[in-house]
Amino acid sequence: MARWAPGARGRLQAAALDLFVEQGYDETTVSQIAARAGVTDRTFFRHFSDKRESLFAGGDQLVDLFTGAVRRSAAHDPVDLAADALAASTEFFPQERREWSRTRTAVVLANPALAEREQLKMVTIAQALAQALRERGVPDPAATLLGRSTITVFQVAFERWILDDEDRPMADLLQDTLSALRQTLAPQH
Amino acid sequence: MARWAPGARGRLQAAALDLFVEQGYDETTVSQIAARAGVTDRTFFRHFSDKRESLFAGGDQLVDLFTGAVRRSAAHDPVDLAADALAASTEFFPQERREWSRTRTAVVLANPALAEREQLKMVTIAQALAQALRERGVPDPAATLLGRSTITVFQVAFERWILDDEDRPMADLLQDTLSALRQTLAPQH
Repeated sequence: MARWAPGARGRLQAAALDLFVEQGYDETTVSQIAARAGVTDRTFFRHFSDKRESLFAGGDQLVDLFTGAVRRSAAHDPVDLAADALAASTEFFPQERREWSRTRTAVVLANPALAEREQLKMVTIAQALAQALRERGVPDPAATLLGRSTITVFQVAFERWILDDEDRPMADLLQDTLSALRQTLAPQH
Repeated sequence: MARWAPGARGRLQAAALDLFVEQGYDETTVSQIAARAGVTDRTFFRHFSDKRESLFAGGDQLVDLFTGAVRRSAAHDPVDLAADALAASTEFFPQERREWSRTRTAVVLANPALAEREQLKMVTIAQALAQALRERGVPDPAATLLGRSTITVFQVAFERWILDDEDRPMADLLQDTLSALRQTLAPQH
């Protein structure tokens, strides 16, 4: 079972993911998910508004990790603020979540509507991050550019993190990817 | 009339946009668009598969401009390849298109489903651009990072280009925005 988080919420997410893999996303009902998790439909709806949310509910936590880190950071340099946001996001990607993330990504990519929702979620996170940077005094266009670039770094690192042959922790991959972006865009001397 | 391009195709796009503004996107039919443009429904469908495509058909041209420029560029430095792609895209944004683009963007942003499609189109363009960079020998992750960053630059410059009080040409805004991104991410000395 693709479980990674404790409690009814984590059990429901794991049950949903297992059923999506076993029988397909479109074919799976909330009642089936609740039954597999050993809870009532009502308990499911206390945690998620619908079956899709069992896959995407984490997005809000990710926004909070990114923006909270920017708000609380002791840094002043804009890129250091972004680096702190990326570092804070690693809390969401412990080693024990890796297999769950691999399976979740496979389910999302296999369904065009889910893949689109995932992309749109990333756009929303970039906008929230840009706003947090503005509130820390980063002017535009730097705040917008840095918000989007940070999410680009995050996405590329995450795609790496879930590769089958990859075992470095998310924190290392984020740092390497941010460095690679800065290196790629650095003026030639 | 928000016309900017000649011929039946441009007339259909202008008629569609006018009707979307006057009576709403959802309320507008293909037959109304064809009638407004003075052509038959059949002529409409020779140019566009549905009314939505009258707003989004330009995306394919934009992909071709970006990727074609990378393929033909005399540059070797990855960022120079990206800069050539951005420069080539200005062909799509002449001054006489500006008012049309302002109106089109207002229509798209007013309709969540269209706004989502616009965002997803940008993801697709970033992927095509990354692939063109790979084919020019740019390794990953640089190709992926640069493809996405180039589209970030493009989007920020375009949002500037359509502001009411902005009159600089797209080429200048693209150059300024690319410089701003490089400056923002440049290592501090």
